[in-house]
Amino acid sequence: MKSTFVADLTAGDAVDDIFALRKVELREYQNGKMISLELGDRSGRVKGVIWSASSEILKTLEVGLVYRVKGTITTYKGETQITVERAVPAKSFDPRDFLPVGPFSREELDCRLSDTINSVVDRDYRGLLDAIFGDAKFREGFLAGVGGKLWHHNYIGGLAEHTLSVCDLCRDFAARYKELDRNLIVSGALLHDIGKVESYSLENFIDYTDSGRLIGHIVIGDEIIKAALACLPEFPAGKSLKIRHLVLSHQGSPEQSSPVSPMMGEGMALYIADLLDSKLAALRRIRQKEYRPGVRWSSYINLLERHIYFGDDGDKGEKENL
Amino acid sequence: MKSTFVADLTAGDAVDDIFALRKVELREYQNGKMISLELGDRSGRVKGVIWSASSEILKTLEVGLVYRVKGTITTYKGETQITVERAVPAKSFDPRDFLPVGPFSREELDCRLSDTINSVVDRDYRGLLDAIFGDAKFREGFLAGVGGKLWHHNYIGGLAEHTLSVCDLCRDFAARYKELDRNLIVSGALLHDIGKVESYSLENFIDYTDSGRLIGHIVIGDEIIKAALACLPEFPAGKSLKIRHLVLSHQGSPEQSSPVSPMMGEGMALYIADLLDSKLAALRRIRQKEYRPGVRWSSYINLLERHIYFGDDGDKGEKENL
Amino acid sequence: MKSTFVADLTAGDAVDDIFALRKVELREYQNGKMISLELGDRSGRVKGVIWSASSEILKTLEVGLVYRVKGTITTYKGETQITVERAVPAKSFDPRDFLPVGPFSREELDCRLSDTINSVVDRDYRGLLDAIFGDAKFREGFLAGVGGKLWHHNYIGGLAEHTLSVCDLCRDFAARYKELDRNLIVSGALLHDIGKVESYSLENFIDYTDSGRLIGHIVIGDEIIKAALACLPEFPAGKSLKIRHLVLSHQGSPEQSSPVSPMMGEGMALYIADLLDSKLAALRRIRQKEYRPGVRWSSYINLLERHIYFGDDGDKGEKENL
Amino acid sequence: MKSTFVADLTAGDAVDDIFALRKVELREYQNGKMISLELGDRSGRVKGVIWSASSEILKTLEVGLVYRVKGTITTYKGETQITVERAVPAKSFDPRDFLPVGPFSREELDCRLSDTINSVVDRDYRGLLDAIFGDAKFREGFLAGVGGKLWHHNYIGGLAEHTLSVCDLCRDFAARYKELDRNLIVSGALLHDIGKVESYSLENFIDYTDSGRLIGHIVIGDEIIKAALACLPEFPAGKSLKIRHLVLSHQGSPEQSSPVSPMMGEGMALYIADLLDSKLAALRRIRQKEYRPGVRWSSYINLLERHIYFGDDGDKGEKENL
Amino acid sequence: MKSTFVADLTAGDAVDDIFALRKVELREYQNGKMISLELGDRSGRVKGVIWSASSEILKTLEVGLVYRVKGTITTYKGETQITVERAVPAKSFDPRDFLPVGPFSREELDCRLSDTINSVVDRDYRGLLDAIFGDAKFREGFLAGVGGKLWHHNYIGGLAEHTLSVCDLCRDFAARYKELDRNLIVSGALLHDIGKVESYSLENFIDYTDSGRLIGHIVIGDEIIKAALACLPEFPAGKSLKIRHLVLSHQGSPEQSSPVSPMMGEGMALYIADLLDSKLAALRRIRQKEYRPGVRWSSYINLLERHIYFGDDGDKGEKENL
Amino acid sequence: MKSTFVADLTAGDAVDDIFALRKVELREYQNGKMISLELGDRSGRVKGVIWSASSEILKTLEVGLVYRVKGTITTYKGETQITVERAVPAKSFDPRDFLPVGPFSREELDCRLSDTINSVVDRDYRGLLDAIFGDAKFREGFLAGVGGKLWHHNYIGGLAEHTLSVCDLCRDFAARYKELDRNLIVSGALLHDIGKVESYSLENFIDYTDSGRLIGHIVIGDEIIKAALACLPEFPAGKSLKIRHLVLSHQGSPEQSSPVSPMMGEGMALYIADLLDSKLAALRRIRQKEYRPGVRWSSYINLLERHIYFGDDGDKGEKENL
Repeated sequence: MKSTFVADLTAGDAVDDIFALRKVELREYQNGKMISLELGDRSGRVKGVIWSASSEILKTLEVGLVYRVKGTITTYKGETQITVERAVPAKSFDPRDFLPVGPFSREELDCRLSDTINSVVDRDYRGLLDAIFGDAKFREGFLAGVGGKLWHHNYIGGLAEHTLSVCDLCRDFAARYKELDRNLIVSGALLHDIGKVESYSLENFIDYTDSGRLIGHIVIGDEIIKAALACLPEFPAGKSLKIRHLVLSHQGSPEQSSPVSPMMGEGMALYIADLLDSKLAALRRIRQKEYRPGVRWSSYINLLERHIYFGDDGDKGEKENL
Repeated sequence: MKSTFVADLTAGDAVDDIFALRKVELREYQNGKMISLELGDRSGRVKGVIWSASSEILKTLEVGLVYRVKGTITTYKGETQITVERAVPAKSFDPRDFLPVGPFSREELDCRLSDTINSVVDRDYRGLLDAIFGDAKFREGFLAGVGGKLWHHNYIGGLAEHTLSVCDLCRDFAARYKELDRNLIVSGALLHDIGKVESYSLENFIDYTDSGRLIGHIVIGDEIIKAALACLPEFPAGKSLKIRHLVLSHQGSPEQSSPVSPMMGEGMALYIADLLDSKLAALRRIRQKEYRPGVRWSSYINLLERHIYFGDDGDKGEKENL
Repeated sequence: MKSTFVADLTAGDAVDDIFALRKVELREYQNGKMISLELGDRSGRVKGVIWSASSEILKTLEVGLVYRVKGTITTYKGETQITVERAVPAKSFDPRDFLPVGPFSREELDCRLSDTINSVVDRDYRGLLDAIFGDAKFREGFLAGVGGKLWHHNYIGGLAEHTLSVCDLCRDFAARYKELDRNLIVSGALLHDIGKVESYSLENFIDYTDSGRLIGHIVIGDEIIKAALACLPEFPAGKSLKIRHLVLSHQGSPEQSSPVSPMMGEGMALYIADLLDSKLAALRRIRQKEYRPGVRWSSYINLLERHIYFGDDGDKGEKENL
Repeated sequence: MKSTFVADLTAGDAVDDIFALRKVELREYQNGKMISLELGDRSGRVKGVIWSASSEILKTLEVGLVYRVKGTITTYKGETQITVERAVPAKSFDPRDFLPVGPFSREELDCRLSDTINSVVDRDYRGLLDAIFGDAKFREGFLAGVGGKLWHHNYIGGLAEHTLSVCDLCRDFAARYKELDRNLIVSGALLHDIGKVESYSLENFIDYTDSGRLIGHIVIGDEIIKAALACLPEFPAGKSLKIRHLVLSHQGSPEQSSPVSPMMGEGMALYIADLLDSKLAALRRIRQKEYRPGVRWSSYINLLERHIYFGDDGDKGEKENL
Repeated sequence: MKSTFVADLTAGDAVDDIFALRKVELREYQNGKMISLELGDRSGRVKGVIWSASSEILKTLEVGLVYRVKGTITTYKGETQITVERAVPAKSFDPRDFLPVGPFSREELDCRLSDTINSVVDRDYRGLLDAIFGDAKFREGFLAGVGGKLWHHNYIGGLAEHTLSVCDLCRDFAARYKELDRNLIVSGALLHDIGKVESYSLENFIDYTDSGRLIGHIVIGDEIIKAALACLPEFPAGKSLKIRHLVLSHQGSPEQSSPVSPMMGEGMALYIADLLDSKLAALRRIRQKEYRPGVRWSSYINLLERHIYFGDDGDKGEKENL
Repeated sequence: MKSTFVADLTAGDAVDDIFALRKVELREYQNGKMISLELGDRSGRVKGVIWSASSEILKTLEVGLVYRVKGTITTYKGETQITVERAVPAKSFDPRDFLPVGPFSREELDCRLSDTINSVVDRDYRGLLDAIFGDAKFREGFLAGVGGKLWHHNYIGGLAEHTLSVCDLCRDFAARYKELDRNLIVSGALLHDIGKVESYSLENFIDYTDSGRLIGHIVIGDEIIKAALACLPEFPAGKSLKIRHLVLSHQGSPEQSSPVSPMMGEGMALYIADLLDSKLAALRRIRQKEYRPGVRWSSYINLLERHIYFGDDGDKGEKENL
């Protein structure tokens, strides 16, 4: 069981705990060679250094694995780092120490996923969803997937949680606006971010995969759909165009890397549902990180170009109970 | 009863019907003076000309009134116009011939408005809503108001219809996202566009008022709220800030003339609800205007910078019935 | 053989020639129903009207077919139109009267295409190119394809002509910059616009297909590559990522609908080669349309936001011969 | 009297002086709890830490108050901080040690303000100005107000100094351009930034108020004007629209948070006067901070996206004396 | 003396008056060849056509000259045009019939120019101004120059009028802001647009010269200054840099084609003075064109992206007289 | 010979080596005065401090000169700095220790420059090139010039290397696109960046000159051309316009500080050649700095807004040899 986390390291202390290896590099310096490391756990990242470098040691260090690290905490150029005496592969560890986990269990998400798929009654769209989410390996990857690296739903389970929230919103929209095809929009919502399953590697920390960067999650998602459609020869061409259009246009505009802009009401509504859920999740994350009683404003959030108002939280609950 | 509408005028025909006077101007030409007119009804606008102009005739012509116009349809520089022989104030007319009317009756909208106000249980917000919508004259103006000149909800009743749709969406959002204060967001939705009551003049056609252009509907809306709050001395300062912030920030960003950007979850959600309802209403309008069986694409829509896909409408209904 | 082209129609004349039917619509007017048409040939488009409309006539009119049209040229709202007396399906016609044809023959383009494919010596990339361009039907579609609707290479053969020019530029670049992988960049250039084969319909005039708009030529191109790769199980994963990245990023930036930005030197170079060839082709088209001796400037070109200088053409030839 | 300022703190020294408390937070660490502080004076800000935290100590610490702080200067993660031994409320202090003060005395600004108000001879506008600036409390707030937090006129008296400079420029403009209504533009200039009186809190340091952020200084200024107009029943409606339009549009365009763009010559001129005075004031501030003999260029100024040229200052004075 | 202007032409009338020839082109049509013309005078432009074209006639037609045109006014595709029977070079004409003339006489502008130059007391800058404006041919070109083609000061004398207004503003600014070097800024203002003397051709209508488009008025202006400085060997290098910087940066930012951004207070002030004078002149032009009693709003002005408010003009004069 | 470079300094070590003096400043502190320095060599920059400051010492320190510095390496606010005991002017040094040098020798660049000039056969353009590059002093400055401060070709010889690469690309383009005037475009390429000779000062480190910032390298380049043309009275006016237009428009658009946009095919092609060579050079620089075996991605590059993919380098060489 891990007891010391990166966020708690204090210069001067000794450390003997497990960390994931994020980067490793051999460097020369005046007195010979050193190995520079980046170590991490679910609380953050820290630099490390092994002064007595040798090619034997270097061979034992593989990015993505978890190591038991023994050393002392020092400061270099104003930043905390670990001067490492020894780093050996960890015999066992709890993955949750390295990747943050979301608020919903795998079972809960799985169950909600089934319900949402079952709510699609159009035989064609339902067939497509069954083909994709019925693949057990894919389904597990989806349920364990993350919504992103930093901005929102950046934890195990975040991808499914976000997807299901967007589905709920879309179902609401279809109930309010009769011109929207409920089966289409809910199917589009379920599939909109599936490309993220292959866009992130989750081996002890969240990173992009090569294809996540070079191909992008939108096109990867479209690929998965195309592959499933290839096995559904009866699937109507018009519906195929529509469902793929929803996934390809869900970021809303070319500026946001959508290869096409939404040209149907369902596409606009899906884009807007995605926008709402990700903005509110980002706000929750900011609040969780920064709010304490008496704090009325967040720090300046660069991505939003504004401060967030936490206000006076007394108002709400009271009144709702009237 | 009006029988000939602007959209139906054909060069060569005679005309004898009632039209609203939108513009009037005295001009000189080689043989003396002429009066140039712009006439309109709910179907569109047309130029008119009175060749034998006199100051007596000019005095009888007042922009905004409805006239019985007798003349012949001609073409000038490729545009249809009416060569007017006589134009006298109409004795009576049906306002619906001049301003388009939305799909919901005043009574229906009034009833839904009451229900929505009643759904707000916070005493403070409810007090504010009662103060504003309890003013009979304001309420009538609101129920008869338009959502805009051209883009969406541009008809009598459009303001209330749009407002109530946004309220419904916000209520859905508050049900989905527990961190949102339902009383606050529904109140903000009810008030977000009230400034439009004073931003448009609806005397026989839709136009901006001077204050609609010089002050803008956002600040006018805030003014109405401030005036109501002045009569509610117990209203808590914190709630006053929040509700005003929602109205002032509902266009989402400075580029869209919001004096402030949304800094609360409720503000972001209200902005997004407004965005969704106006986009979908614009799509409905485009479809109504351009769709006919077999037409699969709209013309290029400049404001959206794209074509809209009408697709193959057979798919939807069928499948829903499965 | 067609003798009267749209660009030559003069009000008052009679007409009896063949035209492609671009749009057809039944409308009501005061005296009953009329059929509104849009007719075209390679020189342009013109409106047409059939006053004595009947459902029998309407059934004979199918968008995309070619008709022998008899009627007279009239003017309506300042625009030329044909008052159609009779429109019957043309018995035979020369497709070149309807779709403009580029300066290079199919044989010439086919031969250059083979040479360019043969210049790729990397076995993997070569195998992919052979798989795609070896499909006879695809190859014919590619050789007959257009580069666009209006801006550049908007004629039969334009797609292949543009593609081969971009290949030539890329081969030059690889010769100049040793860090560029010649096999990769030439393969990327050959494949960069293949999605356009399915993005345009060329039945008597150039139009977008539904998938051309809803999916977009970039993703369609990627699909074709993915399908071919599925039959090449030995194809290395790293090369698959690279070649797909080149196609997906060739528009250069998200603003221009690239789902990803170029992250490799080959991607940047391909984007720049595409930019150069399309700009210069657009200039050639503008010059062809507007230049006459003595004309030193083009009209204002909106897409470029400037006038183009034709200058004094005497300078060049003379000096080159020194 | 304060003798040690934040800007002069040196690691290793002891400190015993007064500082304003800007932030306070209780945090946990390995050995218990600590209190993290942000202290400041007119020269800058510095972090502080109290290692032996207790709830008694915490209760004595209130953001916005001034404390006598005893401790030693240390460095943490490369930044200077104060390890605080004791912090007790200061018995007395000179406010000028905490808020910077501008170059003009309150009396001088007050006198110029009266002169400028008196220069408005239109009875209506003058009445409005008298109503607003005649309120003694508001006038004191205005004379002590700041123009901003950082960029220009960020000191006591800065608001009045900036306002009066803009008035002077507007008076010059009205003298040069006869189409400008001098009374209107000078009144607009006097009122354009009055909302800043309520947008900043000045309790020992400059910060935004909640309404400064949530409502914004433009709408707050309009509110003050509306409130005054409510007591002037004779005020002509047309003039009310104009004066409010000037205040609401003075930032020039929606991108800069103006709810409306200037639609009158006076509005454009006021926007331009504001632009000039704020740019030149920012340049003065940059020069004051960075210029020393021999320094010809400022550092790179992010907000202006350029360096500022200080040049060779010998030229000017000499020549002017010729 | 010209009696019929383009703006007054009425279909059906005969015409026999003088017009400037703006464009000429030989075209083929069914029955042979025709000559298409564009004719103009200070009131506007009109198309013309000579049906019986011959190469003899064509030779007599030279763009830029003035012709006596005899023919009849017709309409073609909804636009007025002249069917020309005869067009012979005009024996004499009044240039003011072809180029609009501004409100100030050459003498008045000349006198103000001298005064402004004399107000510069720095010997170096004064020497430069004398060298440039002392050249009689240049000075006449400057006094007769235009400020632009369409947007503002688009008439003979407009360049000098605009320049002198900007000088006045800059002198005011230097009086208000002591940090500004009056001699430098007034000199910069005098020189800022001198490149326009060579950027427009004024032979019977305003057009760009080739160098006006290919080099641009900013660089042409810099060239004139460089040429003058070449004859002033004693001119200090530092002042040369400053005065050139002011001219090169006066459009304010790269987006507006300034090769450099203003990096000195004088440069920012000159940019702002230019902005103010051109905006107010554009408003005057719009008002002149569109205002008539009772008209409260201009049409939508694309370049400003807004309507302009003419308001109720009674207010101003009255009150000023109190 | 220098043995310790800035990039290798380690806190705690002593240092006794030569460095260029980049900045010097006298500052006060508690115990008196200190001198703050910025020192540098071709590997980077470092702060220095002389605690026992005196005016005698200060007088010996001149920015731009090279000093032998003796002292110890310390850390201050997390940054390495040198506590200087003694700094005396260096008796001799190798300039290459201070300014980075490119991969090509002066002789090689000189020879390629001659060849490229000789390839221009148009007598006029050739005459201009001979006039400019025939000036021995200018030619040396050009051969020793840098392409920029940081982004690409930021070393001695970089200007000529970049220029010649752009020439090669332009020659290729002219061979591919017959409508391009080879003589014009190669001449334009040779001249496009010549203004950089005067835009950077290279006295022991690369910095902008005053004119480099205030006038800009584009206008300085145009000046050099204008000066040369003044001595070539026979040079045709049309060619003068074209060659200057190419230089003035080579940055492509106003946003990138081009005073004019390219209005000729040669201008667009030159802009694109410049774009390609600078992008690929930047990529080479990034790779050189960041690539090591196993590193597949660069860090995030702000100027490109992306990571760069280094990929798996094994692929290329192998396959090329097949």
